[in-house]
Parts: sequence; C-alpha cells; structure tokens
Amino acid sequence: MRIGILGSGLMGAKLGTIFARAGHDVVFSYSHSQKKLQKLARDAGKHARAGTPAEAASDADAILLAVHWSRVDDVLQQAGDLRGKVIVSCSLPMNDDDTALVVAHTSSGSEKLAKKVPRAHVVAAFNTVPSEVLFDVFEARRRKTRPSLVYCGDNERAKRVAATLIRDTGFEPVDAGPLRIARYTEPFALLVAQLAYEGKGGPELAYRFERF
Amino acid sequence: MRIGILGSGLMGAKLGTIFARAGHDVVFSYSHSQKKLQKLARDAGKHARAGTPAEAASDADAILLAVHWSRVDDVLQQAGDLRGKVIVSCSLPMNDDDTALVVAHTSSGSEKLAKKVPRAHVVAAFNTVPSEVLFDVFEARRRKTRPSLVYCGDNERAKRVAATLIRDTGFEPVDAGPLRIARYTEPFALLVAQLAYEGKGGPELAYRFERF
Repeated sequence: MRIGILGSGLMGAKLGTIFARAGHDVVFSYSHSQKKLQKLARDAGKHARAGTPAEAASDADAILLAVHWSRVDDVLQQAGDLRGKVIVSCSLPMNDDDTALVVAHTSSGSEKLAKKVPRAHVVAAFNTVPSEVLFDVFEARRRKTRPSLVYCGDNERAKRVAATLIRDTGFEPVDAGPLRIARYTEPFALLVAQLAYEGKGGPELAYRFERF
Repeated sequence: MRIGILGSGLMGAKLGTIFARAGHDVVFSYSHSQKKLQKLARDAGKHARAGTPAEAASDADAILLAVHWSRVDDVLQQAGDLRGKVIVSCSLPMNDDDTALVVAHTSSGSEKLAKKVPRAHVVAAFNTVPSEVLFDVFEARRRKTRPSLVYCGDNERAKRVAATLIRDTGFEPVDAGPLRIARYTEPFALLVAQLAYEGKGGPELAYRFERF
C-alpha cells in the first residue's frame, strides 16, 4: 500500500518506519524540520521518502494521522482534499500539556475528527499502545501469540485497511465496532499510558485479549 | 478474610462463591429474595452464609460492592457504619438501561462512591471483566500465565486487600494507581463488555498486560 504519514513525532516516525520495513510505500510529512523528515525517510529504507502533507495524502491508500490534537486542523488543511480517503488516526484528543482528554464520554476525538473530514473514512487505531513497544512487537511478529490492538470505525473497507496495517506491524487486530467505541478506547489508551509510564517495569507495554 | 457481599446479581453471586471456595468467610446479602441468598450460600459451601447488608458489613475485612449503580445509596444506607472499612467496588456507574456511563471523564463512579463513604477506603476492582469469565479464570488459576485485572485506589492497605482477593480469584493484580484512574478503567470496562458481548467468540473474555 501507499501510506501517507501526517506527523513526525514518536508515533508517526516509528509507525511509518515499520510500515516501510513491512514493504509499504511511505511518505513522511509534517515536521517543522524538513531535515528530520529526510532523515526519517533515509533511515526507513528504500520504501520511504519525505514530502509535504499534500504529497503524503494525494495517492495514499491509507493516511496515518499522528499529530498532536492541537495540530489536527492545521495538518488537515495542508493535506488538502481527503475525499474517499482512509484515515487511520492514532491522535488522542489531549489537552496542550498532555494531562487529560479534552473530548470524552459523550463524544471522542475520533468522532470529532470524522466530523471534520466527513467524506473521508476514519478508523481509530494504534492509539492504545505506547510508542516504546512498537519496534519490539514488530520484531516479535513471528511469535505464536501476538499482542492485541483494538480498532474501530464506521466504514468496512477502511477497517479492513486498518486491520491489514495492524497485522503488518505485528499486532493482532481486534475489531471493537463502530467509531463511537472510541469513547471507550481513548480512555483505555490513557489507562495503558498510566500503566506504561507510572507502573512498574518500563513503558514497553502491550495488551492481549484472551477468550477462555 | 471475612468478606461481606453487597449485591446478589451476576458479579456478587459469582465472586462471593469464588471467594468462599478460595477459603474466605463470605456473607451474601442484598437480594429481594432471601431464598436466593440462602441458595447462593448453600451452593458456595461451608464458608458462606446469607445475611443482611448490616451483617455482611459489620465484621468484614473487605466488603464487595456489587449492586447496580441505582441501588448504591440504598445498600450503603442498609449496610450502616462503614468507618475504616475496605470497600472493593465492581459497580460501574451505568444508567438505568445499562447503555452508558452516567459519570465519566471529569469524575468516575468509584470517586463518587468514595465521596459517599468518606471514612471507608474504596478500591475499584473486578469491574473490567465480564462475569462469564470468572469461574473459568478461577479454574485455570494454576496456569503459568494469568489474565490481568486492574485495580485502583487511594489507600495502600485497602489496595493490598484488593490485590489479595484478585489473586485468590485467579487473576494477576495490576495496580493502576490512585482512585481517579477509575476515569480510565470504567470506560475500559465498557470496551471489554463491547468485545465480550458484541465481538466474535463469546463473552468469556479476559485481558493480559504484557511487557516486551
């Protein structure tokens, strides 16, 4: 697939690199430093390049939205026409000092996002694990039991694309249902962050749902 | 330990039975049918008996609060003086038709409960797994890897009591921090419920946090 990455923070950088290593064509975009994007692309190998948000989005089969919540409007505006696009979003609706959700309970960041881009297809994914575990899970992708990763969305085609990307990064995709379930998955992301950053044992934390 | 169970629905009945089988002294209470409580106690074996909420609470080392959110005030009033008591609560703050949380985001059911009983010590636990998985996990308690169960609270002694009970039911206790983290664990409970009741594979669902 061709994947446009919007955002070059920890999640965008690491997921873009993993997508490229998994064989997808990746365009990194949206950094204040063009050099940083170029280095990211170089380090990610032959399947990756740097570009503008518009370049990242234009031919993309999937767009990964991985910017801070405060930058969502700006990056969407720069990305241009997103009609029909699959947007996989790992952006949590955090306040400016990253201590609390600014949207929750009666809505979610993912639903707010979907309202901003009504003609695109939003899937919430990759927001429930810390960036610190991503390379470890990718390296361990041939193990028999994989960690889970929940995703949700309202468009079936977009959800299949997201599930493929989740599988390619070494996780087992777990369909949590429609996009409104992000009202639960986004607080869950903060629970995982709490365990990862405040719990014992370091931030390389993942989770696995198991049926008995 | 002596454990008083407030509430005889699925969670109260099953957890009380498991606590009794694990060797604790259990008092079942709070049902509209005294016969139901007596049958529960009989089925749970020699460590269990039926009683009133006041009897369940009076000598208890731990009280399991397992009533519907709409019954919390009533059962607390019937339980009487709870000064210094450890209250392990699995009651989620659900609306009357059990479709949504009535407290979330800026508070949680567990924090609301703690305000109702300021001299007791509230720990939120057992609310993040469906009742359908409880006996399975208890039966599998000798397996090498156990499912996780998150708990949170502000009193260290009460948290140690909760962790012991969690371990006795076959789960691995995962300390999620202070009681305000229930703002994340309660929506997480609804995510688990969504996966259990709307997902593929049946409601016997548990989860496990894993470090890489």
